[in-house]
Amino acid sequence: MHYYVMTLFPELIEKGMNTGVLWRAMEEGIISLECFHIRDYTANKHKRVDDYTYGGGAGMLMACQPIWDTCLAVKERIAQKALEEGRVASAPRVIYMSPQGRVFDQAFAEELSKEEDLVFLCGHYEGIDERVLEEVATDYLSIGDYVLTGGELPALVVMDCVSRLLPGVLNNDESAETESFTEGLLEYPQYTRPEEWMGKRVPEVLLSGHHKNVDNWRLEQSLKRTKERRPDLYEKYILSHGGDK
Amino acid sequence: MHYYVMTLFPELIEKGMNTGVLWRAMEEGIISLECFHIRDYTANKHKRVDDYTYGGGAGMLMACQPIWDTCLAVKERIAQKALEEGRVASAPRVIYMSPQGRVFDQAFAEELSKEEDLVFLCGHYEGIDERVLEEVATDYLSIGDYVLTGGELPALVVMDCVSRLLPGVLNNDESAETESFTEGLLEYPQYTRPEEWMGKRVPEVLLSGHHKNVDNWRLEQSLKRTKERRPDLYEKYILSHGGDK
Repeated sequence: MHYYVMTLFPELIEKGMNTGVLWRAMEEGIISLECFHIRDYTANKHKRVDDYTYGGGAGMLMACQPIWDTCLAVKERIAQKALEEGRVASAPRVIYMSPQGRVFDQAFAEELSKEEDLVFLCGHYEGIDERVLEEVATDYLSIGDYVLTGGELPALVVMDCVSRLLPGVLNNDESAETESFTEGLLEYPQYTRPEEWMGKRVPEVLLSGHHKNVDNWRLEQSLKRTKERRPDLYEKYILSHGGDK
Repeated sequence: MHYYVMTLFPELIEKGMNTGVLWRAMEEGIISLECFHIRDYTANKHKRVDDYTYGGGAGMLMACQPIWDTCLAVKERIAQKALEEGRVASAPRVIYMSPQGRVFDQAFAEELSKEEDLVFLCGHYEGIDERVLEEVATDYLSIGDYVLTGGELPALVVMDCVSRLLPGVLNNDESAETESFTEGLLEYPQYTRPEEWMGKRVPEVLLSGHHKNVDNWRLEQSLKRTKERRPDLYEKYILSHGGDK
């Protein structure tokens, strides 16, 4: 998976992707990252990328030209890279991170993980001129119903989530499978050594070595926890499993 | 606002908070950040913080002792800092970032922005031993229905969102008010110079200087966009505004 990020803060993106398992995935060539600094592509002699909003209102807006030219550079690079690798580059998805977008979830992460190239556009200030978004963005994507200072953290969140679904990124292929949301339930409580800590013991069933009992206990805990904490997910799960618990 | 983050990747947290408007807010003393590296607090002679999961399963779990001792150090620091500043430290909220938590939204950001101190606990690997979570975490918080490799990006997302609500963090106090979700609608399209770009003109009404018409156009656009892209939010808005558009 090749990631390309259009941003005013390339260092933040690079730091985010150079951490933990993603760093290892980059070292192993499973993922790659190239940042394109939007400021490098502005035609403004003072290197400005933003301007006032027509119709008034607080804050500045990112202008069309720098974004457009950055995007051209990214697409050139993708075509060149495909050529080097002897494959045909298809038009990449260009994802604009914005609270206006569809809400990101695990199912959409699965969909994105099938792509060869993913391009992210990170906005700042009050946003981006609508006209250039109409021209370049194929997807508007939101990580949740809250407002942030820019699109960099959201892009990192999406890349993190997508990357861990790629084969070889997690130590153990099982890991991505048994987690929250893959079965529509929250995860059960987990315990590690020591058996007793501050007077609290690990539940006996987990020490029993009886796999079927362990599995049953975990499913029970997942159901209980989901019902308590996320009745919306619980209802979906029960409906899709045809039961009435 | 004082932030304290318990993490295995303090550099990522620091980079995330040293970017853009948050950097300025730190310079101006509106927010402060202290990272506590969990590995510094492990009693394990090999500096390990994780161990196998009881009952089997993929991946490793973060153990009780290092988390507990890190949390003690954070609370000592908070008490000390309050003493220096001549105020009484109340027990801080300790927020465990986890897909098991309540889903973060703008309303919860507003609630958190009223706190004096916020402590974040960032998990890694398969998670954290349940027993220490029961002892230290006051809140379980999820940024959305997807799984990430760790709690660092989610903690940064929450700190970013909360920080921009604090007085003085944004250039213009109006900025935080007129955005997505503060009125329950998605934001209208925005435009900046030039008036014409690649044959696309800024909508005439925005050039008219007629404030009431501009406001009406923007509300119309917000309603239209929300109805198309987020029918769930649209329905809530219409219900709470008593209309039947």
